[in-house]
Amino acid sequence: MNNDCVFCKIVRREIPAAIVYEDDFVLAFLDIAPTAPGHTLVIPKVHHETFLGTPRNLMHNVVDVAQRIGQVQIKTLGAQGVNILINNYPPAGQSVPHFHIHVIPRYGKKDGFQLEMITHLDGKLNLPAVVEKIKSGL
Amino acid sequence: MNNDCVFCKIVRREIPAAIVYEDDFVLAFLDIAPTAPGHTLVIPKVHHETFLGTPRNLMHNVVDVAQRIGQVQIKTLGAQGVNILINNYPPAGQSVPHFHIHVIPRYGKKDGFQLEMITHLDGKLNLPAVVEKIKSGL
Repeated sequence: MNNDCVFCKIVRREIPAAIVYEDDFVLAFLDIAPTAPGHTLVIPKVHHETFLGTPRNLMHNVVDVAQRIGQVQIKTLGAQGVNILINNYPPAGQSVPHFHIHVIPRYGKKDGFQLEMITHLDGKLNLPAVVEKIKSGL
Repeated sequence: MNNDCVFCKIVRREIPAAIVYEDDFVLAFLDIAPTAPGHTLVIPKVHHETFLGTPRNLMHNVVDVAQRIGQVQIKTLGAQGVNILINNYPPAGQSVPHFHIHVIPRYGKKDGFQLEMITHLDGKLNLPAVVEKIKSGL
């Protein structure tokens, strides 16, 4: 636990949250700044800063709940699609340094989740070199 | 396997790809339209349309590789952050109907991945009702 972490405070019930699921390892609650109705955050109860640094078994527990929440968003909220997003570290947009999975229902109309994945790197990449760098670390 | 699926064709080596990792269950290769150098896709070799519909054990295999790739993007590519993104169904931006995880390294400068999560739903949400709907499906 981390005394100053806002998500740890939610786990300890020191801050209120709209909790949708809880078990021994995982907590899920509605995002306080939802981009769409049902936007849910899934976290490990124990403090880990990022998905990348969370032990595998615990990470699986969190991902399993995210999968179930996404299925339910389609079944009971009428979502037509679901985005699963994990931001690791501030340069990737992580705002709370406690691993959390965004499970974002999409309803086929304009909402608060605007995502653009644009390729503007053509010709600037040395693909074989990138492949070798990744392989060298695995 | 799905005869028409472009990712199944990559698995069968009928389409070339810059492969960075392979085991019995999982394949990882560079995105053909990278938003940043090292943008990698991780897929199960067997065809499943979405993350939400992939059996748990196989899903874990895919997520484990995504975690390792993200760690390596920081270690060997010098990324300062990593986004993990899974789009489920076309209304969520899924373009290839074969479960894939985007592992996107971020370098702290403007790149092709533009993400905005805007709350413009204040006052329009009945949070207790949403909580109950999600709980009813879990």
